[in-house]
Amino acid sequence: MSQTANTPKPPYYAVIFTSIRSDGDNGYAKMAEKMVALAGEQPGFLGMESAREDAGITVSYWKDLPSIENWKNHTAHMAARQKGKEIWYDSFQVRICRVERAYEFNRET
Amino acid sequence: MSQTANTPKPPYYAVIFTSIRSDGDNGYAKMAEKMVALAGEQPGFLGMESAREDAGITVSYWKDLPSIENWKNHTAHMAARQKGKEIWYDSFQVRICRVERAYEFNRET
Repeated sequence: MSQTANTPKPPYYAVIFTSIRSDGDNGYAKMAEKMVALAGEQPGFLGMESAREDAGITVSYWKDLPSIENWKNHTAHMAARQKGKEIWYDSFQVRICRVERAYEFNRET
Repeated sequence: MSQTANTPKPPYYAVIFTSIRSDGDNGYAKMAEKMVALAGEQPGFLGMESAREDAGITVSYWKDLPSIENWKNHTAHMAARQKGKEIWYDSFQVRICRVERAYEFNRET
């Protein structure tokens, strides 16, 4: 993603997903693309940021905890997470956070 | 960083820093390395994760809000942030979050 997420004023929620991939693609890139699109369609979705070097970091932003729970229980997302554990990731961490304060800087042009 | 952060049980705090860099290094890489080392020496620091593709994401973890405030007011960090606005970043966002829940997966080997 080439942009940072344009989120509303806090409070809202963030899910920080950090991961170490296993070797090889094994269908990962295609599924990741699908999941990004599908997450964007969910109620309460506010935005997403993602980057990977050695470790990958994906932060998704949500209106509230029920929105996160709803996405967690989405059938296609559950299936993707299962394959993540079986094949795509050596390790990952998920952190559910309440965004309490936020500020931004934009260069004047 | 090749590892994800090994943080304690929630609650604790996360600072999500997302950014778009300006063109050229202009001393950025050297200063970034210094800031990572310096942050790691601060009281209440719990860990850090970082990755950059088009956008950069750095998440630092802290024991509590005063620890974050203390790092924010560190003289060398303030000077680095000022240069960030003047030179290194086209835009950035900072989000201060309370980590409420966390879980992890590690492949059995």
